[in-house]
Amino acid sequence: MDTEQLLLQIAVILVTARLGAELAVRLKAPPMIGEICAGLLIGPSLLGWIAPHEVIKLLAEIGIILLLFEVGVETDISKLITAGPKAVVVAITGFILPFLGGFALSYWLFDLPLLVALFIGGTFTATSIGITVRILAELNRHTSYEGQIILGAAVVDDILGVFLLAVLYQFAKTGNVDAGETLAIFLYVGGFFVIAPILAKLMLPLFKRGFELSRVPGVIPVAIVAFVLLFAGLSQWVGAPEILGGFAAGLALSRRFFLPFGAALNLGADFTHTLQHQMRPIIQLFTPFFFVTVGLSVDLSTVDWGSSFFWWFSLTMLFIAIVSKIAGAWLIRESIYTRTAIGMAMVPRGEVGLIFAELARSAGVFDNDIYAAVTIVVAYTTLLAPFWIKSYYRLFGARLPPADERDRPP
Amino acid sequence: MDTEQLLLQIAVILVTARLGAELAVRLKAPPMIGEICAGLLIGPSLLGWIAPHEVIKLLAEIGIILLLFEVGVETDISKLITAGPKAVVVAITGFILPFLGGFALSYWLFDLPLLVALFIGGTFTATSIGITVRILAELNRHTSYEGQIILGAAVVDDILGVFLLAVLYQFAKTGNVDAGETLAIFLYVGGFFVIAPILAKLMLPLFKRGFELSRVPGVIPVAIVAFVLLFAGLSQWVGAPEILGGFAAGLALSRRFFLPFGAALNLGADFTHTLQHQMRPIIQLFTPFFFVTVGLSVDLSTVDWGSSFFWWFSLTMLFIAIVSKIAGAWLIRESIYTRTAIGMAMVPRGEVGLIFAELARSAGVFDNDIYAAVTIVVAYTTLLAPFWIKSYYRLFGARLPPADERDRPP
Repeated sequence: MDTEQLLLQIAVILVTARLGAELAVRLKAPPMIGEICAGLLIGPSLLGWIAPHEVIKLLAEIGIILLLFEVGVETDISKLITAGPKAVVVAITGFILPFLGGFALSYWLFDLPLLVALFIGGTFTATSIGITVRILAELNRHTSYEGQIILGAAVVDDILGVFLLAVLYQFAKTGNVDAGETLAIFLYVGGFFVIAPILAKLMLPLFKRGFELSRVPGVIPVAIVAFVLLFAGLSQWVGAPEILGGFAAGLALSRRFFLPFGAALNLGADFTHTLQHQMRPIIQLFTPFFFVTVGLSVDLSTVDWGSSFFWWFSLTMLFIAIVSKIAGAWLIRESIYTRTAIGMAMVPRGEVGLIFAELARSAGVFDNDIYAAVTIVVAYTTLLAPFWIKSYYRLFGARLPPADERDRPP
Repeated sequence: MDTEQLLLQIAVILVTARLGAELAVRLKAPPMIGEICAGLLIGPSLLGWIAPHEVIKLLAEIGIILLLFEVGVETDISKLITAGPKAVVVAITGFILPFLGGFALSYWLFDLPLLVALFIGGTFTATSIGITVRILAELNRHTSYEGQIILGAAVVDDILGVFLLAVLYQFAKTGNVDAGETLAIFLYVGGFFVIAPILAKLMLPLFKRGFELSRVPGVIPVAIVAFVLLFAGLSQWVGAPEILGGFAAGLALSRRFFLPFGAALNLGADFTHTLQHQMRPIIQLFTPFFFVTVGLSVDLSTVDWGSSFFWWFSLTMLFIAIVSKIAGAWLIRESIYTRTAIGMAMVPRGEVGLIFAELARSAGVFDNDIYAAVTIVVAYTTLLAPFWIKSYYRLFGARLPPADERDRPP
C-alpha cells in the first residue's frame, strides 16, 4: 500500500477513535467502547474503509504493550503478590468452567465435531487483559483490592491461554499432544514472567546512569520505549504473549517494586514521575490503535442474521460465556460483592478471544458460521461488559473494600 | 515478518541510534551523524541485522513528517516570506548548477548514456531538508536570517525536485515529456504549499473548540498527530512530498503565523506551549527512525572498492556536487559569510538524493556501479556536511547576522 494511504488511514483511525471515545463518554459508556465501535464503523463490518494492514496491527500491538507497561508502573507488586493465591484460583476456575461449558454445550447440545467444540471452549477461556485493565483504570479501581486480584487473574489466564492454544493447535495439526513440549512451553512462559521483572529491575541502575550521562535531548522516551519493546519481544520469543513483557517492564519501574536487595535500586519517586509525564502522550497516542483494531478485526457483514441456528447457538454460547466466568470467581472466599465484581471483570474476551477464533478458522477448524457466531459472542462480552461493570460499581461500589487513597493518580 | 522480530528490531534501532547520537556528540559531531552511522552499522552495509522493512520505513516517514512539523511550528512566517525571493533564487541556482554539472561531466567526460547522465544530474539537485533543518536547529540557527533563506530554499528545492523527477521518469518510460501533465504537477504542488497552511489555520478554531469540549484525556497528542498526518497524506495525494504537508501543518500552528483576518485565529502562546510540550516526546521518539533509515537504505557492501573508474568518477562527482551547490548560493546579494553558510547548508543530499538514485535504479537506468558511486556521493555530502557546517559556524558564526534572541528555545 502507498505511504499516502497509510498516513491517511492512521489519521482516520485517530480521528474516528477520538470522536467515538468522546461520544461514548457522553452516553455514560467507557471511551474504549467508542473506540471499538469506531473500528466496527470504518472496518469491514460497515464502511469497509480500512482493512487491518500490517502496519496498523503493529501500531496496535505497540499500543497494548505500552498500555500494559503503564499498568505495570502503577501496580503495587506487594499487593499483587498478596492477591496472588486468590488471583490464581480465579484464573484457574475462570479458565476451566468456560472451557467445560463451551465445550460441553457445543459437543452434546449442538452436536458439533470434537475439535470444533474444543476450540469453542478454548475461545471462551480468554480474558482480555487490555479491556479489563482499561475499565478498571477508568473507574479508578485498578490499584484497589479486587483490582489486584483481577489483574493477577488476567495475567495468569493469559499464560494458561497460551498453553491451551499450543495444546489445541498441536492436536488440530497432528491429532496428538506431545506432553514434554507442552510442559516446556508452560515452564518458559511461567519462568519468563517471574524472571523478567527482576531482570528489568536489575537493568535500571544502568539506565539511570545512562540518563545522567546523556547529552542529546529525548533520552527518556527513546530509552523507555526501547526497553518496553525489548521485553515484549523477549516475551514473545519465549512463547508468552508480548503484552506480558510490557507489563513486566512496567512492574520493574513501579514505585513499589522490591527485591531482597531492593532499596539500592530505588530510582526515586521524582524519576518515576518525570518518566510517566513524558511517556503519557506517547501511550495516549498508541492505545487507540489497539481498540480500533479490535473493532477492525471483526467482520459483522459476513453474519447470516436470518439463520435460527445462528441465534440459538450464539445466545446459548453468550449465556454460558458470561455465567461460567462469573461462577469461576464465586469460588473464592470474599464478600459476594467482591466476588461478583471480579467475575464480571473477567468476562470480556476481546482480542484474546479473537486470536483463538482466528487461529481456529485459519486451521480450518471453524467454518464461517461457527466463526461468525463465536465472534459475535466475543464481541458482545467485550462491548457489554464495560457497561454493566460501570453500572455495578455505581450501585455497589460502596460495598467493596475502599480503594487506597495513596494510589489515586493525581 | 513476525511481530516479535519487528518489536526487537524497533528496540535495536532506538538503542543503536541513541548510542550513535551520544557518541557523535562526544566526538563533536551532530547527533544525527551518529544515527545515520547506526543505520550503516546495523543495515546491509555492515552487520546486516536489519533490512528496511515497510513498518520501519513508515515509522521513518512519520519521523521526518513530525520533525518538519516541529520546524514549521518554530518558523516565523513573516521572516520566511521576507526571505522568499532570495530563497527562490538560491533554490533555482542551487538546482540548475548541480543538474548541469552532474549531467555535463557524466555525459561528456565519462561518456555515460544520455538518460543516465540526466538522472545523475537530477540526483545532485536534491537538498535534504531533514538533514539541513536538524543541523541548523542543533546550531540554534534555524530561525536566524540565513536559516530562513536556507529553509525556504530547501522547500522550493523539494518542489522543483518532484517536478524534475516526474519529468525524468516520464522521459525514461516513454522517451517523451508531456508538457501539459508536467505543468499540472507543478501547479498542484506549488498550489498545495500556498493553500495548505491557510487551510490548516482555518481549521484551528474548530480544533481549539474540540480541545475545550473533550472529556477524554489525551486529546492533544492524538489530534495533533492526526492533523499532521492528514496534511502529509494530502500533500502526497496532490503529488508533493509528504514532508511539505507536515511543514505546512506546523506553519499553521506557529506563534507568528498571520492572515489578513489573523488576530481572531490566534490560539495564544500558552496553547502553543502546551502543545509543543506534549508533542516533544513523540517527536523525539519518531525522528531517530528517519535518520537510521537513511543509513539502512545505503548498501556499502556492494561497492567495488578496487575499481579505478569508481574512485575517479565518484570523486569528480563529489567535487561537482559540493561546488555546484555552494556556487548557487554565491549568486545572491549577501555578505560572503552568509552566502557560504547558505551554500554549505544546501549540500547534503540525504534521503531526497537516495530517492532519485533508487528510482533510477528501479527504472533500469543506473546499473550497480553507477548506483553505488552516486550513492557514495550522496552519503558523503550527507555525512560530511554537518561537520564542516559546524566548524564553519564555530569559525565565522560571529560574522553572520545575529540570531534573534526571542527565537531561542528556552
